[in-house]
Amino acid sequence: MKIAVDAMGGDHAPDEIVRGALLYRDEGGTAELILVGRDEDLRRIVGAAVPPGITVRDARDVVAMDEHPASALRRRADTSIGIATSLVKHGEADAVVSAGNTGATMAAALLLLGRIRGIDRPALCGMLPTTKGKPACLLDAGATMDADEHNILQFARMAARFMEQVHGVERPSVGLINVGEEAEKGGRLQQTAHALLSGAEDLNFYGNIEGRDVVRGTTDICVTDGFTGNVLAKGMEGVVDVFVEGIRNDIFGGPLGKVAGLFALPGLGKFRSRMDYDPYVSAPLLGVAGVSVVTHGRARANMMRRAIEVAERAVDTRLVDVIAEIPTRNAA
Amino acid sequence: MKIAVDAMGGDHAPDEIVRGALLYRDEGGTAELILVGRDEDLRRIVGAAVPPGITVRDARDVVAMDEHPASALRRRADTSIGIATSLVKHGEADAVVSAGNTGATMAAALLLLGRIRGIDRPALCGMLPTTKGKPACLLDAGATMDADEHNILQFARMAARFMEQVHGVERPSVGLINVGEEAEKGGRLQQTAHALLSGAEDLNFYGNIEGRDVVRGTTDICVTDGFTGNVLAKGMEGVVDVFVEGIRNDIFGGPLGKVAGLFALPGLGKFRSRMDYDPYVSAPLLGVAGVSVVTHGRARANMMRRAIEVAERAVDTRLVDVIAEIPTRNAA
Repeated sequence: MKIAVDAMGGDHAPDEIVRGALLYRDEGGTAELILVGRDEDLRRIVGAAVPPGITVRDARDVVAMDEHPASALRRRADTSIGIATSLVKHGEADAVVSAGNTGATMAAALLLLGRIRGIDRPALCGMLPTTKGKPACLLDAGATMDADEHNILQFARMAARFMEQVHGVERPSVGLINVGEEAEKGGRLQQTAHALLSGAEDLNFYGNIEGRDVVRGTTDICVTDGFTGNVLAKGMEGVVDVFVEGIRNDIFGGPLGKVAGLFALPGLGKFRSRMDYDPYVSAPLLGVAGVSVVTHGRARANMMRRAIEVAERAVDTRLVDVIAEIPTRNAA
Repeated sequence: MKIAVDAMGGDHAPDEIVRGALLYRDEGGTAELILVGRDEDLRRIVGAAVPPGITVRDARDVVAMDEHPASALRRRADTSIGIATSLVKHGEADAVVSAGNTGATMAAALLLLGRIRGIDRPALCGMLPTTKGKPACLLDAGATMDADEHNILQFARMAARFMEQVHGVERPSVGLINVGEEAEKGGRLQQTAHALLSGAEDLNFYGNIEGRDVVRGTTDICVTDGFTGNVLAKGMEGVVDVFVEGIRNDIFGGPLGKVAGLFALPGLGKFRSRMDYDPYVSAPLLGVAGVSVVTHGRARANMMRRAIEVAERAVDTRLVDVIAEIPTRNAA
C-alpha cells in the first residue's frame, strides 16, 4: 500500500508532518509513504538518507490556509495537495492525507477523484472526544451547504460504514441533531430527515439529539447539514480554546498558580488523556471515489501518524467500495 | 413599576427564585415584585411577614421543564407562567420574568401578549460571556425554526435595539453566523441574509463570523436562524459542562488535586469572574408585545436578581415601543 502525504499542509508543516510520517514507519507502519512538497525542505527534515519505505515527490507550491481553494487549484498545477491527490487518481498511491486547507483537500478530491456513483453530495466528518471516552463522528462538518433530507440520510449511512470499517464500532448509533427529542421538533429539514432515518432499517437510529449531546457521546454518529455541522464544530472548538487558555493563564498562570500546577500534574494528565483525540480526529472525506483523509490544521507528528493509520485502515477495509453499495436515493 | 416573577420555574425553584426576588429588593431595587406560585410554598420561604414591595399571587400549577409547553398552557389555566404572563396582559404588571421551561415562557408570551405589529417572528437571545469581557448576544436561540432572510434582518434589528437600550452598547456590531468570512459563503439563506444586512444602514454590520467568533466576542450580536442558534448554544454549553466537570473532578479531584486547588484559588476566582454571566444572561423575548424575560433554568438567587434588573431596564427604556419602530418587511 502507498499513501501520499501532503507534507506542506497544516500549521506545523512541513516539519511536524514529516516527523509524523517518520513516526508512523518507526512504529511499525507498513504502508509506503510518498511525501509531497518542496524537495529541499523535506530532505532537510528527513535527513541525508531517506529511510526505506519513504519517498519524496517534489511539489513547488502550496495552497495557503486562508486561500480560496478551488480557484487556487485551478490556477496552479503544482500544489502539494493537488499533486498528492493526483497520485491517487493515477493509481500511484492508494490514499492521500492532509492537514492543510480543508477546502483545498475537498476541492482536489472532488475535482480529481470525483464522487462515488450514487452518492449525491460528499460529507466531512468532525471526530470529537466525548465524556464517554469514545469518539463521536459529527457530520457533515461543512462539505455540503443546503443539504436536503436525502443527503442527510446518505451522510448517516456513509458515517455508519466509516465507523464500522475504520473504527470497528458495531451497529453505530445515529443521532439527528435537532432542538429537542420529539420527532416533530425542528424545521422542515429535520422533520423530513427524521422520517427518512426512522425508516432506514440498515441504520441504528437513536432519534433526535441536541447540541450538548455531541460531547456527551449520546450517539456514535451525530448527523446534520453541512452548515449547521460546521457552525457547531467551530463553536465548540472556540469554547475549548477559551478553557484551555483560561486553565493555562488564569488558573495556573500566576506565581501561586505555578505551584498549583505542580500539584495538579497528575490530574491535568488525566484530563488531557480523556480529551486526547489524536488517534481518531482524522477522517476520510465521505462520498469521494478514493481515500482522502483530512486531519486537523493543528496536527503535530503524533496526530499525523494517526491520520496515516486511518487512511491505511480505510484502504484495507475497502471503505470506498463499501460506501458504493449504499442504497441510492431512488432505491432507498 | 411592577414585575411578575414566575416563582415556580427553574431547576432551583421556588427557593432560589424567591431569594433572588428578596435580594433584588435588599439591594435597593425599586420595582414592586409579584411572586407567582403556590402560596404556602412561597410564604414558607419569604417568612411570616412578607416584606414591603413584595406580594404573593397564588398559582397552583407549574409547567415542568420537560413538558410540551403550548399544550400544557392550553389545558391548564392555573400555571405560574400562565398567570404571571396574564398579569402583564391585563396591565397588573409591567413585565414577567421566568427561569422555567423556555418553551412555556415563549408560548405564554405569544398566546397572551402576541407579537409586536410589523414583527413577523419572535427571537430568543442567548447571552454569552466572551473572552473580551463583554457579553455577546446570540440570536435566534430557538424561537423560530425555518427563519427566512427577512426574519434574520428583523432579529438583527431587534437585538441592536435591545443591546442599545438595555445594555447601553452604542452602535452594537452585528455578525452573521456563517462558515467563512466571504459574502458568498454558506447556503442560500446566509447569502440572501448577508445581502439584506449589508444594505441595512441602521445596522453596524460587521459581516460574516464563524462559530468560534461567538465566544471571542468578535461582534456584540451574532445573528442566525433559530435552528442553528439553538444547536450552537447547546453545543457550546455542552463543552462548558465537560470542562467544568473536568476541572472539578480530574484536575482538582484527587488528594494532590485538592492541594493544587488551594494554591489555585486566586486563579480559579479570576477565571470564574471572567466567565461570570449572572449580570447579563437574562434577556427579554424579542418581538413580543410586552416584556417577558427568560433566564437560565440553572438560575440561583443572584442570577434571578439580575434577571429582574434586566426586565426593569427593558420597561424603563420602553424597549417594546422602540422595537415597534423597526422598519417592517415592506418598508425596509
